[in-house]
Amino acid sequence: MTPAYTIGVDFGTNSVRAVVVACADGVTVGTHVFDYPSGEQGILLDPRDPHLARQNPADYIEGTRVSIAGALDDASRRPGFSRDRVIAIGIDTTGSTPMPVDARNRPLALDSRFKANLAAHAWLWKDHTSADEAARITAVAREHAPELLAPIGGTYSSEWFWSKVWRCLNVAPDVFDQAASWVELADFVPALLGGIEDPRHVVRGVCPAGHKALYSEAWGGLPPAAFLARLDPRLAALRERLYDRAFAADRPAAHLSAEWAQTLGLRERLPIAMGSFDAHYGAVGAGVRTGTLVKIIGTSTCDCAIAPAQRALPDIPGICGIVNGSIMPGYYGIEAGQSAVGDILKWWVEGVCEGSDRLHAQLSSEAAALRPGQSGLLALDWNNGNRTILVDPRLTGLLLGQTLHTTRAEIYRALIEATAFGARAIVDRLKEFGAPIDRVVCCGGIAEKNPVFMQIYADVLGYPMLVAGSPQTPALGSAIAAAVTAGAAAGGYDRFEDAQDRMTSLKDLAYQPDAEASRVYDELYAMYRELHDTFGGMASPNAALGSLMKRLLDLRDRVVRSS
Amino acid sequence: MTPAYTIGVDFGTNSVRAVVVACADGVTVGTHVFDYPSGEQGILLDPRDPHLARQNPADYIEGTRVSIAGALDDASRRPGFSRDRVIAIGIDTTGSTPMPVDARNRPLALDSRFKANLAAHAWLWKDHTSADEAARITAVAREHAPELLAPIGGTYSSEWFWSKVWRCLNVAPDVFDQAASWVELADFVPALLGGIEDPRHVVRGVCPAGHKALYSEAWGGLPPAAFLARLDPRLAALRERLYDRAFAADRPAAHLSAEWAQTLGLRERLPIAMGSFDAHYGAVGAGVRTGTLVKIIGTSTCDCAIAPAQRALPDIPGICGIVNGSIMPGYYGIEAGQSAVGDILKWWVEGVCEGSDRLHAQLSSEAAALRPGQSGLLALDWNNGNRTILVDPRLTGLLLGQTLHTTRAEIYRALIEATAFGARAIVDRLKEFGAPIDRVVCCGGIAEKNPVFMQIYADVLGYPMLVAGSPQTPALGSAIAAAVTAGAAAGGYDRFEDAQDRMTSLKDLAYQPDAEASRVYDELYAMYRELHDTFGGMASPNAALGSLMKRLLDLRDRVVRSS
Repeated sequence: MTPAYTIGVDFGTNSVRAVVVACADGVTVGTHVFDYPSGEQGILLDPRDPHLARQNPADYIEGTRVSIAGALDDASRRPGFSRDRVIAIGIDTTGSTPMPVDARNRPLALDSRFKANLAAHAWLWKDHTSADEAARITAVAREHAPELLAPIGGTYSSEWFWSKVWRCLNVAPDVFDQAASWVELADFVPALLGGIEDPRHVVRGVCPAGHKALYSEAWGGLPPAAFLARLDPRLAALRERLYDRAFAADRPAAHLSAEWAQTLGLRERLPIAMGSFDAHYGAVGAGVRTGTLVKIIGTSTCDCAIAPAQRALPDIPGICGIVNGSIMPGYYGIEAGQSAVGDILKWWVEGVCEGSDRLHAQLSSEAAALRPGQSGLLALDWNNGNRTILVDPRLTGLLLGQTLHTTRAEIYRALIEATAFGARAIVDRLKEFGAPIDRVVCCGGIAEKNPVFMQIYADVLGYPMLVAGSPQTPALGSAIAAAVTAGAAAGGYDRFEDAQDRMTSLKDLAYQPDAEASRVYDELYAMYRELHDTFGGMASPNAALGSLMKRLLDLRDRVVRSS
Repeated sequence: MTPAYTIGVDFGTNSVRAVVVACADGVTVGTHVFDYPSGEQGILLDPRDPHLARQNPADYIEGTRVSIAGALDDASRRPGFSRDRVIAIGIDTTGSTPMPVDARNRPLALDSRFKANLAAHAWLWKDHTSADEAARITAVAREHAPELLAPIGGTYSSEWFWSKVWRCLNVAPDVFDQAASWVELADFVPALLGGIEDPRHVVRGVCPAGHKALYSEAWGGLPPAAFLARLDPRLAALRERLYDRAFAADRPAAHLSAEWAQTLGLRERLPIAMGSFDAHYGAVGAGVRTGTLVKIIGTSTCDCAIAPAQRALPDIPGICGIVNGSIMPGYYGIEAGQSAVGDILKWWVEGVCEGSDRLHAQLSSEAAALRPGQSGLLALDWNNGNRTILVDPRLTGLLLGQTLHTTRAEIYRALIEATAFGARAIVDRLKEFGAPIDRVVCCGGIAEKNPVFMQIYADVLGYPMLVAGSPQTPALGSAIAAAVTAGAAAGGYDRFEDAQDRMTSLKDLAYQPDAEASRVYDELYAMYRELHDTFGGMASPNAALGSLMKRLLDLRDRVVRSS
């Protein structure tokens, strides 16, 4: 059989990366990165509103062309590769990143009348201008349609589709009125490559729809018009112009148009896999399977798991999303996350200690020399709020146990531990509700570069911490989705599981939990939960809080004596 | 009338300072500082035990001679001064700093057999080796003699007399057995200058006795032998060799011996005032009077106040000491304190931010530009435990409200605010129990050098913060005590109040509370008390703790909007 290749394209926050991957073994044979040219590192900002983050859809179109062409050029230098062996394309993007489009499925921002209007551009996932709208959606749903909130953990976010669309309606009604439809970036790029010129024909993925737009087959698709009308009648009217169904990645989203085929030198009508979010295809590229928790550890952390769809999974309180088919067809996709992880360490090292990479390395090595419990410190990892399991952005950090001798390295370690405790709260919640976890696979720079971080996670979680073989799991996952979409007959695969078996790997690097450290961390985690549950408003304050500082000192004394 | 002068000698932690002061106006006409030559900056340390801090009594004797002689030499350059116009000497020292002496009142450490034994030296106030003994004294008193604990706030400290003496008995019984008596440094120096060669003749001050040795007229002097016998029968036996009565500063402790008169070129039989602790004579030198709180703000803070002894003052829970006559005759002396103030800022700037004086100045100026409530931060000032009002060394620091944007200057300000809230807890407690405060006079380097610190204190406490005129209030207070001890007939004064009127002053510098800032701080202080009372174990956790972070964010948003 001639070797087959797929293309995976990963639309990140600042750039787009395309890879050409061999279907036989998942090896990347070509790659290219395109930095978005607009705004600040690709992001359109508003100096008057720090919550605003938009992107120029023109960058997406240009990025699609340049990144794929570049990756193909790169692959072409490899012996054995040729463009006619590319069998499919897969796309993953940030999300929720919706944009208003006209009746020809062109982003409104490309229209000269709207170019200068930031509301007409793409609303990047981290745009938080719609906090009021999100709170209102949650409140109305709690009162009138609580079932809508059950699969998303109980709280609708300002980062999500309806908050943003409603915000646009409120602050830029002319843009809202002019929009024929709104399309998520993950759905837009496949449609773009497929030459789809009517938003009603855009095939919508269940991943963006289910995780961000309150889509569920349980209530027949998007939220009922009656519910939307309670927010604003014009949202109910918009619902009719959006879509009725969203699909898992068991069918193509589109086929490559003649025009794009010519532009890229690829075969016409190549299948384009369903678009998905970067974390979800990242989980695929990391080898997610039943019992595997994939942690994409970066500035924040996204946790993904799957559970067979044959058996009903209960709603899990505080877990941001459970959507049938959102990660892989035939499975519930489960998504959780921590609002800040790397960002907290960056804040400490660069923001407070005013250090650079060298200080990161130094504190990391000093922190490695400390034993669990030795500093007497305990922290909450909420500097950017808590996504899972409290779903509450209005929480802040806490550090407890400082003496006059506390060092910056001790605080650095306590902050890592706090994020590990936050990670454990997620794992415990998943297990409690019947999603078993038997291994943890990590992706992202921290997983590859920060051994003390990984060892602490292994000790706190009590699982070996494995590291995904690919440094670019989202793009690899997109390429895998493409290989499955093309099918075995074309040189791909019938099932995601088969493609993953061949195309994903783990690094030899793995961090094993240390039994003694885990015992100490069990004690510290119990104290963390006292703070977590009290300050998170989950429970009435623990009556034992008045002895917490002493218990930490006792633990410290025990640890120091036993050394 | 020919001008009269007195000498004040202040035995600090690292050095002894003597001043020659004009009785007419309190002006210093001569000064000399002697650095203790032994150990590390005058302190004998044990590399195996960080809690140990001792001093060589030989340094005290040498320091007495050199500092007084030097100050007299310095004064002699002034026109109008002559040694025969010196009418008395006053002494203040650190404390509790007891030392074992032989039957001739010679420190055991001067005996060649004991020179190398650290237990035979003076046990410096900050020696914490006797934590176990202190805890045991508190426990036994709670069970068998709770009345002993009432005037000291409920907890006996490892810094105090009986803890140290008992510790010596436990770890160096040979030293204990050889000691004819134990003498506080504040009593030792007057006896030394008076040539007293029998420890039974050493006149003991009520300040060390009452604040540190559980002395009270209520139970007839030192704690009953039956109580001490519960600790160790040998302590009960020691009691018989100590003293029956201790005295306020309304009588001399001694008169200058012929030998010392000759050594110093002073008149023989000059009265030596009762020795007292530095903070107490510091309060005198700062102009303490009924309604005045004197704050000696340094690495830690000592708060002193007085209340007329005619009217009985109740025991005040959590206040370290209330002793009749300990600051000025005819008044209850009230002592409170914060375990770390300047030390917390030093920890932050030097320990964590690894900065120097320049960074102190920079953070101070950046902190001054922030408004109360603007950072969203709230801290507890317990990095070194809490002396007043919780009397609990096993407490630690807490910082709450961090975001990813929190700066080191914001934390610096939050730490200052935390110490100010701790100061307010003391003031509130004093007022609650009938010790009115109508003005606050500050001494110490921070009071003179850190305007943002002082303004925050004014705003938090709601009082003008005044600054003592003398930078050396303890030595000035000793000189005032000397002037009163000598009496009006000799060119001094009949009453402390009269001497203070003439010999103390305030700097023009004063910090007035800002009404708007005080309003915000009232809110923040209420939140501080939620944390304080919960983590201090004073009260069951406040049920509202679960909303604390949100309330801080709300306050921040209000403050920012109103700017």
